[in-house]
Order: sequence, then structure tokens, then C-alpha cells
Amino acid sequence: MTAATSAPADPHGPAARPRRRAGRPAAAVLDQNGITSAALQLIGKSGYDGFTMAALARTLNVAPSALYNHVSSKRDVLVLVQDHLTSFVDVTAFEAGDWEQAVRDWAWSYRDVFSKHTPLIPVIAVLPVADAPKTLAMYEAVSAGFSRAGFPQERIVPAIVAIESFIFGSAYDVTAPADIFDSGTMAASTPHFTAAVQRLAEEGHEKPADVAFRLGLEALLAGLGALRAA
Amino acid sequence: MTAATSAPADPHGPAARPRRRAGRPAAAVLDQNGITSAALQLIGKSGYDGFTMAALARTLNVAPSALYNHVSSKRDVLVLVQDHLTSFVDVTAFEAGDWEQAVRDWAWSYRDVFSKHTPLIPVIAVLPVADAPKTLAMYEAVSAGFSRAGFPQERIVPAIVAIESFIFGSAYDVTAPADIFDSGTMAASTPHFTAAVQRLAEEGHEKPADVAFRLGLEALLAGLGALRAA
Repeated sequence: MTAATSAPADPHGPAARPRRRAGRPAAAVLDQNGITSAALQLIGKSGYDGFTMAALARTLNVAPSALYNHVSSKRDVLVLVQDHLTSFVDVTAFEAGDWEQAVRDWAWSYRDVFSKHTPLIPVIAVLPVADAPKTLAMYEAVSAGFSRAGFPQERIVPAIVAIESFIFGSAYDVTAPADIFDSGTMAASTPHFTAAVQRLAEEGHEKPADVAFRLGLEALLAGLGALRAA
Repeated sequence: MTAATSAPADPHGPAARPRRRAGRPAAAVLDQNGITSAALQLIGKSGYDGFTMAALARTLNVAPSALYNHVSSKRDVLVLVQDHLTSFVDVTAFEAGDWEQAVRDWAWSYRDVFSKHTPLIPVIAVLPVADAPKTLAMYEAVSAGFSRAGFPQERIVPAIVAIESFIFGSAYDVTAPADIFDSGTMAASTPHFTAAVQRLAEEGHEKPADVAFRLGLEALLAGLGALRAA
């Protein structure tokens, strides 16, 4: 994941600003890490609905204009937060070599990180990777693992995108209310669905979102795994 | 899909309001269909960012207070819009019997409908079905198809949720910019990923989002299809 520390192209990055003079108080120095930490702190306290640039400036104890010297919009901050969170996604097993277990570790950790931050999903799903060095480093680790596992090169990106799409949708499902499939007064007109929901509830050992995620992920692993060279 | 026309429990529904007297101008009558049509018209014109209750009231040529007699929030309107759009999702093939083709028709049409309305995905992904009669009717048609195809009853809902999660994530991917995977100045530090992206671009016959969706969907079909009773 070294790409994350070598992003030279970001005009908002530390390199683009003059070095602070000795003697200035450290608390007054704004940088991407400080903005990201403050944003996460604010989001943890007030959620994404309460997350505004004005509130972020207050959290940082700076004027909004000082904040805008470093990021041009709320979306910029969300990109920083998203990229930071991606560093908690586990790609270590791709180096060890068991492709199926590596995809499992990656996918479960990826889902778990973003299920706590679903308002970022619309951002990350359409985010150019050039703006997100840690995300790009994740893709590199995953691509290298797929390549070593014998995937045809032209299938690697589509396979990653397919698994990621499943992960993003599944992250939302983690946040679904327990009664999402309660057909209520329409039970009589939806007998197959109502019976299937009831039957699943009777099984009831594991969270429904985890049951669905495991089933889908294992199906994807079986289906995509067949693409690998013998 | 008859459940959609027999939703008796909605307190905002037509049945809960007094019938209008003969002679009143039809344009002044607000109902769920009229609100839904106006919302779609407004969203088509100004997108979801420009969609506010005030703008919707103006489109309907009524006072905001009149609108709030029928829906209690913007989210209520988005639920109406989402449920309406679900009626364009194709579930007809589930009756014909070929499970794989029915899932294909369902999944592609479902993705295509919501890729044009991605701001609804966070709403639909956590929406209790009791609030959405057409969505519930869709689940009934799909569940019945899975049941006829020999799926164990306790696997039907998790399998549907897994495919749906994949569809929701894939709907976002349709809207991704063409350069989403351009690694830019970081190409040298991400050789596997950059090469895989380049290789896919050289293939280049089909939209990348369609390639990924087909690959993932066929993998899910193969993996989930194995659950069916012989």
C-alpha cells in the first residue's frame, strides 16, 4: 500500500503549500490528515446528515476560508474520508496466495467498513482512482492477487468491479431494518414471498444480511473462480 | 402484479380521503398517482438535487400545505417514485419457467431502471416492503419463480437479496465516469492494476459496466443455480 504515501499530483497536498515557519503553533496547521481526522470525528458524533463544511471548520477551530484553502468542496472531504477508510480494508491475504480466502477476507472487511459509512457509497462508486491513492493501492493488491491466481488479464477488472458492486449493495443491506420484508396486510396476496421470509426467520441463527452476503459471495467465488487458468 | 392495486392499509391512499364531489376541477385533486407523476416530471427536469417539496408543490400548482396532507416528507415521495419505477422491472419470464433466463431479464431490467435513478438506491435498499406494494408484488413474482425452480425455501430470500445487492451496486457503476480507473501519475506504482485496465480498454467492444455486470450475473447464476433441487 505504498502508493498512498507517494501521491505527488494533488494540488491540495502538503507539497503544494509553503512549509510552515518554525515557532508557529502546530494546532493551526491544516493538512489532509488533520482534515480527515476531524471529518471522521464529526461524522462519528453527528452522522453524515450533520456533516457540513461550516461544522468541519468549527471542529478544526479555523475559519471556513482556511478550510477552503485545502479542499474545494464537501465532496473533496468525503473523498479524503473514503480513501482513509479504504486503508482498513484487508488485502493482506492476496499476497499469501489462496485466492478464495483472500477474496473472502477482502470482501467481508470491505463490506464491514462501508456498512458503517453508507453515505460514502455513492461517492466511492463513481470516484476516479487517481484522486484516491489508498483506494488505488487496494486495487493494485487485489489485481496482483487475481493475476497470480491465474485470471485472464482482460477479466481482472470486470471481476473486481462485479465483486465490488455486490459489496456496495450488501453494505446497504447491513443497515436495513429487521422488518424490511414484513409484508404486513398484503401477506395474503404474496404467499410465496411471505412463506419464504417466514421460513428464513425460523432458521434464525445468523443476521439475515450475513446469510445473504455469504450466499452471494460464495456463489461469485464459485462462478468467477472457474475463469482461472488450470 | 395485482398486489399493487389492492393496498388497503395506506392512510395516505385514496380510500382514506373523502371522494371529491362532482363538478370540482380535476386538476385540483391531489392523489398518490398525481404526486408520483409530478415528482417524476420534476426529477426529469431538474434531477434529484433540485427535487424539493416546495418545487414539487409548485409543479402540482398547490400550496405546500396541501401536499403535506398526502405525504409527510420528501422521503415519502421518493418511496412513491421508487415503487412506481419498480413496475417497469421485468418479472414476466418467471412465469414461463426458465429460471436462468428469468433472472437475467429481471436483473438487467432492474439495473437499467435504477441506474437512471441512483439517488433512490439508498431509499430502496432499506425500504420496508409493506410501504411499497409494487415492490412487494415484484418480490412475490420472483419468489414464486425461485420456488418453482426448485430452490430450498430457506435460501430464496437470501438469494434474492444477494442478487439485488449486486444489482444496486452495479446501477451505480453504470454512472461511473469513463476514466474511473485511470491511475494517472501513479501508474508506475500500480503495474498489475494499470495493465489490467489497459488490457480491458483494448478489448473495448462493450461498455465496461455491461461487461462487469454480465460477468458477475452469470457467476451468480452458476453459483446460486447449484442450490436448486435436481
